[in-house]
Amino acid sequence: MTSLPPNPKVAWVGVGAIGLLYGATLARAGVEVHFLLRSDFEAARSGGIRVRSPNGNFHVPPEGFYSHRSAETIPPVDLVVISTKTTANRELPGLLRPLVHPNTRVLTLQNGFGNEALLAGQVEPVNVLGGTAFVSVHRIAPATADHQHAGRIAIGQYDRPPDEGTEAVAALLRRTGFQIDVLPSLAVGRWTKQVWNVPFNGLGAAMLADTEMLLRTETGRSLLRQVMAEVIAIARAEGITAEHIPDSIIDRNIKFTLGMGPYKTSMQLDREQGRAMEIDSIITSMLTLARKHKISAPALTSLEVQLRAVDTATSACV
Amino acid sequence: MTSLPPNPKVAWVGVGAIGLLYGATLARAGVEVHFLLRSDFEAARSGGIRVRSPNGNFHVPPEGFYSHRSAETIPPVDLVVISTKTTANRELPGLLRPLVHPNTRVLTLQNGFGNEALLAGQVEPVNVLGGTAFVSVHRIAPATADHQHAGRIAIGQYDRPPDEGTEAVAALLRRTGFQIDVLPSLAVGRWTKQVWNVPFNGLGAAMLADTEMLLRTETGRSLLRQVMAEVIAIARAEGITAEHIPDSIIDRNIKFTLGMGPYKTSMQLDREQGRAMEIDSIITSMLTLARKHKISAPALTSLEVQLRAVDTATSACV
Repeated sequence: MTSLPPNPKVAWVGVGAIGLLYGATLARAGVEVHFLLRSDFEAARSGGIRVRSPNGNFHVPPEGFYSHRSAETIPPVDLVVISTKTTANRELPGLLRPLVHPNTRVLTLQNGFGNEALLAGQVEPVNVLGGTAFVSVHRIAPATADHQHAGRIAIGQYDRPPDEGTEAVAALLRRTGFQIDVLPSLAVGRWTKQVWNVPFNGLGAAMLADTEMLLRTETGRSLLRQVMAEVIAIARAEGITAEHIPDSIIDRNIKFTLGMGPYKTSMQLDREQGRAMEIDSIITSMLTLARKHKISAPALTSLEVQLRAVDTATSACV
Repeated sequence: MTSLPPNPKVAWVGVGAIGLLYGATLARAGVEVHFLLRSDFEAARSGGIRVRSPNGNFHVPPEGFYSHRSAETIPPVDLVVISTKTTANRELPGLLRPLVHPNTRVLTLQNGFGNEALLAGQVEPVNVLGGTAFVSVHRIAPATADHQHAGRIAIGQYDRPPDEGTEAVAALLRRTGFQIDVLPSLAVGRWTKQVWNVPFNGLGAAMLADTEMLLRTETGRSLLRQVMAEVIAIARAEGITAEHIPDSIIDRNIKFTLGMGPYKTSMQLDREQGRAMEIDSIITSMLTLARKHKISAPALTSLEVQLRAVDTATSACV
């Protein structure tokens, strides 16, 4: 993968909390960012994007906003960043097609597992990147984000080590002012995040319990540990060794999350607010691999059943 | 067991929604009822009990109300009815002792399994009765009940068939005006109720999902079916045959509950309102029997873990 051209053009697909924060900070830095929006399109086109942040509040004027129905009016770009909910993944091919030329890099910042593989079916696999954001930011109104703290993003190359193209994307994203790390192995980064995401998102949403409630009892902690151990067992079968992710990550996750204070994961918020939950990418992706490797994962299995039961239910309530 | 004396005295222990409704209707009928209250004692002693009911609203004047700290000031009675939460069962022996003479009958209307066996350790087993109420009634304020519909109670004798004493207790309770049935087998009645109670209370509370939400998807219904099947397997090992409770009860429960409309079980309400849940009597009692008979009950097992995790947590929030 070659480096990016000078003054690269960017398309940002999916402007929820993450897209609002990073897309807007990138546009503010003078990068040409085209935003592809769904629910917030009207608000952004008329009033731009507003970000409240401890780094300083700011406003992006209403230019470069496109409806998800008119992706074809965006010129092909050099980098597409995807931050839609994975529940909308079936629409991605149609949205992506007009945005890419043969050298366009596509970076997914979405939750869970399997998003890069999906993109590798749409564009050259060598052009696919993935990343995870470590940030506390909420969309508090249409086209309005409230950034609370942190902001680091770790990116990597799909199925291969980083190269100068990865470094170029990282350098571009650093113009946001946030810390951008390049991962030696995207897979290890994804699995590390999954070991946290699966128990806290899954149990949090199935039981409507925030991190503090899940962690408060020994029973709750042992349930979290069991789910994490099942995810690690699947990761091991996928070639993630104890040198990549040691078993001690379980203790570290418990300790780290205890220190976070009460926190509702995105999946719990999705269920509470009647939105579809990212069950496929966060939970089912794990069970698909468990079946492939003939690994028993009873806690994950019952978790998926519970989430499926309430997911359609709450969606039907909307 | 002999019949009750003329003008039997009654003590009603635990005056939540059930106690308010039945205790008050019994007192209104002229029966001498002594109420033993905890949280609603002050309200009842100063203003009596109020019941809203489609059968007519009424008020029981403030006489015969005792604090749970002064059970010994109630004279021994001929019938004790217990409708406390089972989470307070460890306090029952101390409350019961001053209320009973050698022929006092003790009827528990509590939820779940094992309550009669507990009483049979306190009084002569032959004097122990159990029953289940089929009623929609809510405590809407201290010492105030809102009765919505139904009201049938089915009672039976602990570990033996009904006799003239059982009939006498039923006759006394019929003075409330409600339908009171005598069960040929209390065990069958309890198990029948458990087949409904365990899935709807257990999953409802663990997942904070009302009956409609649990039933809305095929996944939810299969989860309910699995829990019911595990309860039935345990019942079978305890001698409840398909003639007593056929497997078709699963379909009937699904169909019946679909017709009820959205309903939050007591355990879900307990969790939502930060009260201790009746996990021991409704769920753990089943797992104790499963272990005794070496029956695998994976859905019940994971249900108990989830409930324990959030039970202490929400209790600690109060």
